[in-house]
Amino acid sequence: MFEIAQLAGVSESTVSRALSGSPLVNENTRNRILKIARSANYTVNINARNLRQKRTRTIEVLIPLAEYGRQHMSDPFYLDMLGVLADALSERHYDMLLTKRAPWAKGVETNSIQCGRADGIIIMGQGQDLEALRNFTDLYPQVVVWGGHLREDDYIVVGTDNVAGGKLATEHLMKLGRKRIAFLGDPAEPEIALRQQGYRKAFLDNGIAVDESLIFSAPFDAREARASAEKMLQSGVSFDAIFCASDVIAMSAITTLRNAGLDVPRDVAIVGYDDILIANSFGPSLTTVSQRIQEGGKTMVELLLQRIEGKSVDTTLLPVELVVRESCGAP
Amino acid sequence: MFEIAQLAGVSESTVSRALSGSPLVNENTRNRILKIARSANYTVNINARNLRQKRTRTIEVLIPLAEYGRQHMSDPFYLDMLGVLADALSERHYDMLLTKRAPWAKGVETNSIQCGRADGIIIMGQGQDLEALRNFTDLYPQVVVWGGHLREDDYIVVGTDNVAGGKLATEHLMKLGRKRIAFLGDPAEPEIALRQQGYRKAFLDNGIAVDESLIFSAPFDAREARASAEKMLQSGVSFDAIFCASDVIAMSAITTLRNAGLDVPRDVAIVGYDDILIANSFGPSLTTVSQRIQEGGKTMVELLLQRIEGKSVDTTLLPVELVVRESCGAP
Repeated sequence: MFEIAQLAGVSESTVSRALSGSPLVNENTRNRILKIARSANYTVNINARNLRQKRTRTIEVLIPLAEYGRQHMSDPFYLDMLGVLADALSERHYDMLLTKRAPWAKGVETNSIQCGRADGIIIMGQGQDLEALRNFTDLYPQVVVWGGHLREDDYIVVGTDNVAGGKLATEHLMKLGRKRIAFLGDPAEPEIALRQQGYRKAFLDNGIAVDESLIFSAPFDAREARASAEKMLQSGVSFDAIFCASDVIAMSAITTLRNAGLDVPRDVAIVGYDDILIANSFGPSLTTVSQRIQEGGKTMVELLLQRIEGKSVDTTLLPVELVVRESCGAP
Repeated sequence: MFEIAQLAGVSESTVSRALSGSPLVNENTRNRILKIARSANYTVNINARNLRQKRTRTIEVLIPLAEYGRQHMSDPFYLDMLGVLADALSERHYDMLLTKRAPWAKGVETNSIQCGRADGIIIMGQGQDLEALRNFTDLYPQVVVWGGHLREDDYIVVGTDNVAGGKLATEHLMKLGRKRIAFLGDPAEPEIALRQQGYRKAFLDNGIAVDESLIFSAPFDAREARASAEKMLQSGVSFDAIFCASDVIAMSAITTLRNAGLDVPRDVAIVGYDDILIANSFGPSLTTVSQRIQEGGKTMVELLLQRIEGKSVDTTLLPVELVVRESCGAP
């Protein structure tokens, strides 16, 4: 900036104002400054300065959707979390770079840390290629992952205790007297596998054998989840409750059951997982295991910024809590 | 990349895989490649290449909140729109850089187009500093603004016809027989001023004088909007309907009215503006003027990418539509 000011014969603050498009600089001066800035390749200097300082004041938020099939960024869980992350980052004067291309995906040449576009990465969901994720986080420790805790020596994870959450949801349905409690969710996702473990644990700890015919798979996407719930109905297997692996799956199941003339919670009690914003205003309002999205998002930002500063941080599992509402009936 | 491959004695695809952290490259090779890449300042080369190609495949989404007081990025309207933008951009293999610092804000040195961080900017809401915005878009035409259409020679705007929308909402309440229709919203925001114009136009076109005591101000933020609705109740002015300038304001007003023992829609009919996702599942579900968030978001992305390619594009006003639900009573 100093050089440009020298060349243009103006002060540095005038250069700054001109580059930012301030109306305080008259048009001729601005055009002269912009011309000099362009010819001096001032843009490259800014990137170079960011690299020298090793600070971009930008955090990448990666939603590795491609691996998840058709789940969209506009999924309510992601949106709720993105809102929390955007607020938490902007409070600390960081920008957010949102992307869905994992650095280890085919055809991706580099990553945003390596090429100086971001200081660190928040990965929303560990996805299904754990080897690639582990490999990447070994090389680039400036990463925090939302998801399930799988191994002690793994990357830094923030999330809820999914096994405890699954157990809590299932035992609540048992206490309500439900006898045929189904599970609906895709255990190919690490977090969902843990929730299913919790579901199984609830039966085992209560001395009941798990009826495998009650376990159904459903993807995260709302439309596909509705198709899965329809298949469940058509299977002929009888059930009086469903522990759904996410709130979106729960809302899809409720819609499908109602369309089939069934009453929720009278005929089928439903418990979801996440406690997204809409869970409270859906009809019936959802009983669900809270993922503490507010706390979780803020924790991810805090841990990542500490990590970027070179501090040692630990995986943080948030305690689970069942939010009891209408979808599972009166206690 | 070619130079690094030469120095390391490996193929370019091995370099690419090593930089992306692929497990297909053995550790020794990867470490050697990373060392060479670092010493060759490969990172700078990537930024430089982006600048040469004038393509970052990144679009900045700017939410100039600072000017808006305390509205958060997690505001439901923004989140719904961000979801649409994120999906539309990622379909076209663009990343999204989310920021709330306007390039013309105090202390900001440059902007993401100038410094090669983004190919263009989507500005969510024109805010209150129109002169700065006009100045900026004169210099940087790769900008699309969500908001109200104010002048023919302005920057490219995508939005609904706010005057028509305000008129539609108000006339609907008139047709329902409501006699004391209040307005709740802050006309310091250009879009809200246009909606208020529509409200006034409905009265004028129907030969009724506008009762200025029925016009109340309320900011976008939910908590502050509740405080505004409380003041409205305490003012002693009687009203049997409110046209709220946003759905968040409408939901805040409903909550406040209910807490005061009033019934919506029996005692007070409510119409909102936006048709955010939650409007349909709120209790009572909101009658609201749709902002066609899906269509609006996709249109902004399309127009901006055409603009970046140097094509001439026009401001696009989406037609307004009243979505009739429960909050204003049976028609």
